[in-house]
Amino acid sequence: MASAPSPKKLKKADSTTHTKLEPRDFDAETQKFLEEIDSCQNEIEALNEQVSKIILKLEQKFNRLRKPYFDKRAGIITKVSNFWPNVFNNHPDLSSLLEEGEEDCFHYLIKLDVEEFEDIKSGYRINFYFGKNPYFENTVLTKEFKLGSLGIPTSLSIPIRWKEGMDLTQTNKPTCTRTGRKRQLEQRSFFAWYNDHIDPTSDTIAEIIKDDLWHNPLQYFLVPNLEVGNGVDNDEDGDEGSNADDDEEEETEVPTPAEPSEGN
Amino acid sequence: MASAPSPKKLKKADSTTHTKLEPRDFDAETQKFLEEIDSCQNEIEALNEQVSKIILKLEQKFNRLRKPYFDKRAGIITKVSNFWPNVFNNHPDLSSLLEEGEEDCFHYLIKLDVEEFEDIKSGYRINFYFGKNPYFENTVLTKEFKLGSLGIPTSLSIPIRWKEGMDLTQTNKPTCTRTGRKRQLEQRSFFAWYNDHIDPTSDTIAEIIKDDLWHNPLQYFLVPNLEVGNGVDNDEDGDEGSNADDDEEEETEVPTPAEPSEGN
Repeated sequence: MASAPSPKKLKKADSTTHTKLEPRDFDAETQKFLEEIDSCQNEIEALNEQVSKIILKLEQKFNRLRKPYFDKRAGIITKVSNFWPNVFNNHPDLSSLLEEGEEDCFHYLIKLDVEEFEDIKSGYRINFYFGKNPYFENTVLTKEFKLGSLGIPTSLSIPIRWKEGMDLTQTNKPTCTRTGRKRQLEQRSFFAWYNDHIDPTSDTIAEIIKDDLWHNPLQYFLVPNLEVGNGVDNDEDGDEGSNADDDEEEETEVPTPAEPSEGN
Repeated sequence: MASAPSPKKLKKADSTTHTKLEPRDFDAETQKFLEEIDSCQNEIEALNEQVSKIILKLEQKFNRLRKPYFDKRAGIITKVSNFWPNVFNNHPDLSSLLEEGEEDCFHYLIKLDVEEFEDIKSGYRINFYFGKNPYFENTVLTKEFKLGSLGIPTSLSIPIRWKEGMDLTQTNKPTCTRTGRKRQLEQRSFFAWYNDHIDPTSDTIAEIIKDDLWHNPLQYFLVPNLEVGNGVDNDEDGDEGSNADDDEEEETEVPTPAEPSEGN
């Protein structure tokens, strides 16, 4: 809990919680007390704003400091074959996301990154960079989450230019109508998620990619045989790092060297 | 979204996400790439830890700076009759929490505070201070959330010493077995919540009290007739600040001056 950046959900903006205090039905004494409470609230609010600004600047600074390492990492990852499909397949919450055709398509995923907007709080985008592939013409697929003009979170995606007969959203099962986390984690394919903008305030898959997978994909690439420290080692039967299985299948595919992906 | 402190959920500790990288089935070249990725991860992780430590110190500092205002506010609040029952009744997510007997009991609630543990991340407690009342002997009821020795979140409450025949958990409907936010927000009475320690990782009511109500209770005390700024003023029919109603009842009781609560 200490070191990982805390997940930041994209929430409806509450630009201010300051309440206008106007004379009304209260007796004079109560009115005076309420004004005194209001004055305390103003002091608290001012401190909240002060610390929020400092933390925002810090986060911006550390995003800049981290960037060269993320960039360097991205460059090396392009040289490891099947890095991203293995990461997704080994991730405990994302392993069921990739449907059959999508899994093949993900062999062409050479780079994934998360870009927070400069002010951090107004949004972010997840970029999926694909090499030349039989499925679509795009080289980058982007899903973006941002606070709209009224402070309402919205999401949008770059439309996919599918090649003739290769549209994976046509061959996969349709997005099911269940709601909530269950639906997001178990019931959707990757491209159904990518195209879904119904409830951007609680896009669990985007949050997992942004706050977990993106921060350390290597642990999921390595997970089938190596231990991922989670603070509690109660795994005594020698089945190390088995948090990749999703209580539905045990296939902890060891990445097999294939042809090197196209670098960028 | 800018000024309010971001909600911090009490989550299972992930003391480290660092992955042990050991030689194994990879070919020498892949192994070398993975080690390079690992080295980037270590740099990123070191920066994460650095910024987490700075933010923790900042939060501790600002908790200290805010404390005198919270303390002063608490003192004034004790002089406003029915402050806390009105705040709970007007809160959009908590208004259905207080059952009939509990609402009467809440007239004796003279102070409420949230204490974060000194290191912030390991837990917090919510204290409810009651004046002499016909229901129980306690002067403080405390519900505490903390990370246990294995990094597992737990909660506990000070047992309530009910007076003869006054046990409100006996007269209210039992805790229902529905799960999730719905259950928490709609199906439970205050004391059922207080005594419930089944799933402390997602205690929505505790989070609302800690991250919202506690930060600015005044806005909910005032809400029946005054506007609460939420960044969007689309309320043009004169029905200002009606976000207190919970689509089930319209009773926006104006606090009636009663006997002054006992101060402390």
